[in-house]
Amino acid sequence: MPQRRPVIGVMGASAPGAAALEAAHHLGRLAAQAGWVVLTGGRPAGIMDAACAGAKSVPGSLTIGILPTGPEGPVSAHLDVAVFTGVNEARNVINVLSSDVVVACGVEGPGTASEVALALKLDRPTILLAAAPAASAFFRELAEPGLLHEAQSPEGAVELIEGRLGLPRWAAR
Amino acid sequence: MPQRRPVIGVMGASAPGAAALEAAHHLGRLAAQAGWVVLTGGRPAGIMDAACAGAKSVPGSLTIGILPTGPEGPVSAHLDVAVFTGVNEARNVINVLSSDVVVACGVEGPGTASEVALALKLDRPTILLAAAPAASAFFRELAEPGLLHEAQSPEGAVELIEGRLGLPRWAAR
Amino acid sequence: MPQRRPVIGVMGASAPGAAALEAAHHLGRLAAQAGWVVLTGGRPAGIMDAACAGAKSVPGSLTIGILPTGPEGPVSAHLDVAVFTGVNEARNVINVLSSDVVVACGVEGPGTASEVALALKLDRPTILLAAAPAASAFFRELAEPGLLHEAQSPEGAVELIEGRLGLPRWAAR
Amino acid sequence: MPQRRPVIGVMGASAPGAAALEAAHHLGRLAAQAGWVVLTGGRPAGIMDAACAGAKSVPGSLTIGILPTGPEGPVSAHLDVAVFTGVNEARNVINVLSSDVVVACGVEGPGTASEVALALKLDRPTILLAAAPAASAFFRELAEPGLLHEAQSPEGAVELIEGRLGLPRWAAR
Repeated sequence: MPQRRPVIGVMGASAPGAAALEAAHHLGRLAAQAGWVVLTGGRPAGIMDAACAGAKSVPGSLTIGILPTGPEGPVSAHLDVAVFTGVNEARNVINVLSSDVVVACGVEGPGTASEVALALKLDRPTILLAAAPAASAFFRELAEPGLLHEAQSPEGAVELIEGRLGLPRWAAR
Repeated sequence: MPQRRPVIGVMGASAPGAAALEAAHHLGRLAAQAGWVVLTGGRPAGIMDAACAGAKSVPGSLTIGILPTGPEGPVSAHLDVAVFTGVNEARNVINVLSSDVVVACGVEGPGTASEVALALKLDRPTILLAAAPAASAFFRELAEPGLLHEAQSPEGAVELIEGRLGLPRWAAR
Repeated sequence: MPQRRPVIGVMGASAPGAAALEAAHHLGRLAAQAGWVVLTGGRPAGIMDAACAGAKSVPGSLTIGILPTGPEGPVSAHLDVAVFTGVNEARNVINVLSSDVVVACGVEGPGTASEVALALKLDRPTILLAAAPAASAFFRELAEPGLLHEAQSPEGAVELIEGRLGLPRWAAR
Repeated sequence: MPQRRPVIGVMGASAPGAAALEAAHHLGRLAAQAGWVVLTGGRPAGIMDAACAGAKSVPGSLTIGILPTGPEGPVSAHLDVAVFTGVNEARNVINVLSSDVVVACGVEGPGTASEVALALKLDRPTILLAAAPAASAFFRELAEPGLLHEAQSPEGAVELIEGRLGLPRWAAR
C-alpha cells in the first residue's frame, strides 16, 4: 500500500517578473529534492512552467499540472501528468484543494490572488513568497489565525513547510 | 424575441457586519427597481440572503441564486430560481461570469475576495461597496485600468452602474 | 416571500431531427403555459433553442440557459437569463441538478445521453420523449425504480409531470 | 524534458459484480506493467479501488485519483496522488478528458454510463470491457465511427490499446 506523496502547489502569474520566475524554478527544485509532488496550473508559461522545470531537474521528481483546458490546449513540457479539466478558471479551486501546502510566488495578478483567497477559504496552509506589501497586508487581515505564512526565499519557504507546517520528506520505497 | 435582462451580481460574506447587511438589502431593492436580475450565491445567509430579500420587496423582481450544493442544500427563501451547481466553491466563477456587473458588499472574507479577484481576472466590471482600506489598496493595484470601481453607498453603486458602466434600466414588455 | 417556480429542464441534441425539434418547441410552450421555468443548455441550436423559443411564445414565461462558455460564447436569442458557467461539458451536471424534472427530447447524441445518465445518477425524475428503442432499453435497465419515465408526445410528457410526478402549475402572485 | 506518461482511465461502478471487480484489478496490473498511469475516480470502492490496487502491485507504477470531494472525503489507499476537485459528479468530465484511453469495466450504473457518454462526446477513445448487450447496443448506435471499441478481457483491452489505438509502452529514463 503506497503512502501518498505530499503535494506542493506552486501558484503565480503567467507573465511574472524575473525574480519571481527564478524563485519558482528554485522552489520547484527544492520541493522535488524533498520528494514532494510539484503541482501547478500546467500551462507552458510563467511560474507554472518554471516550477515544473525546476522540479524536473531532479531525478525521480513528479510534476502534475491541472489544466484549464482539455487536451487541445497548450501544456508545459515539464509535466509528468496532465490533468485536463476543461473547466477554465474553476480549476483554481482544484489546484488549491489538491495541495497540502500552497505557495504563491508573488501575487502579481488576479488569478493568483483568487487562488490565495480560495486557499484561505478552504483551509489550506498558504505561504506568500516575496509578496508585495499591499498583498501581504490584505491577506494577513483576511486569514484565519495560523493559516497564512510568509517567506522571503524558496529556502525559507521549504524550511517553513518542513518545520512549522510539518510536511514530511518523502522517498520511494 | 426577449431582451436579456441585465444581471447584477451581489457578493459578500455569509456573516457580515450590520452595515454591510443593510447595504446589501438596499442595493437589492434598488437593483430590482431598475429591472435588473439580482444574482447571488443563493444560500440563506448574509449578503446573499439580504440582497435577494431586498429585491423581492419589489413587484416583478427576479432573483437567481447560484448554489454551491445540489437541491439537498439550504436555499434562500428569497429566490425565484435556484441554479444548483453541486460544484461547491467552483461556483464562484459562475457567479462572476453571469453578472454584467459584480458588486462586493464589503470584502470581509476570503470567499468574497476570491470573487473580486476572479471578476478582475475575467474582465467583469466590479464595484467595491464600502470596502476596508486594505482591500481597496490591494485590488486597486491588481486591476486592469477601468475595471474596478468604488462606491460608498448603494445609491452610489447604482449611479455608477447606470452612469459610467452604462447598464440600461429594464422593463417587461 | 416568493415560491420558487418549478423548473423543467429540456435536453437534446444540437442538430436533431425535425420531429424532435418540433416536439421541443411544443414542449417549451406547454411548460411555459403551466408557469414552469424552461431551463436548457442555452446555446442557439437544436433542442435548446427550440424549447426556449416555444416558451417565449407565452407571455410571462421565463427561460434560463446554462451555458458551457463565458459571455463571449453564442447564446440563444430566446433566453431571459443566461447563466455563464465557463466549465464546458461539466455544465451538464448543473442542468440536471437545477431541474425539477428532466425531459430528453430524443437521445440522439452522447451529450444528451450523458445528461440522462447524470439525471439518473443524481436522482432527478427523468422523462424520455420519443426515445429510440436502444436508448429506451438501455436506460430502463440502468434506472432505479420510479425514476425513469417515457412519453410519446409533449402533451404526454406534461401530463406525466403534472400527474404522476406531481409538479404544481405556477402563477405569479 | 520528460515525456508525459500515457494515462489509462479505468471507470466502473462503486459496487460492481465480482467478475468486473477482478477484471479491473487485472487491467490495472497490466496497464501498470505497460508503464501507463492508471487514473480513476479515486474513491475506496469498487472498480476505482480495484484498478488502483492492481496497478500498485507493480513496482514503479503511478496511480492518480480524481476525487469528487475535497481532502475531507474518503480516498483509495492505492493512490500515489489524489486530485481533490470538490466538484462532485462534474469530475466525471475531468476523468475522461485526462485519459488517453477510457476503459469502462462493465456499465453497471448511471455514473459509468455518463462517463462513457462524455468520452464519446469529447472524442476520447473508449473501450467497453465485457459490457452487457443493452449497453453495447446503445453506445454502438451513439458513437462516431472509430471511437468506441469492445473487449472481452483485460488482456484483450490492453492488446487493443497497444495495437489499434497505438498507445506506446512507457519506461522511466
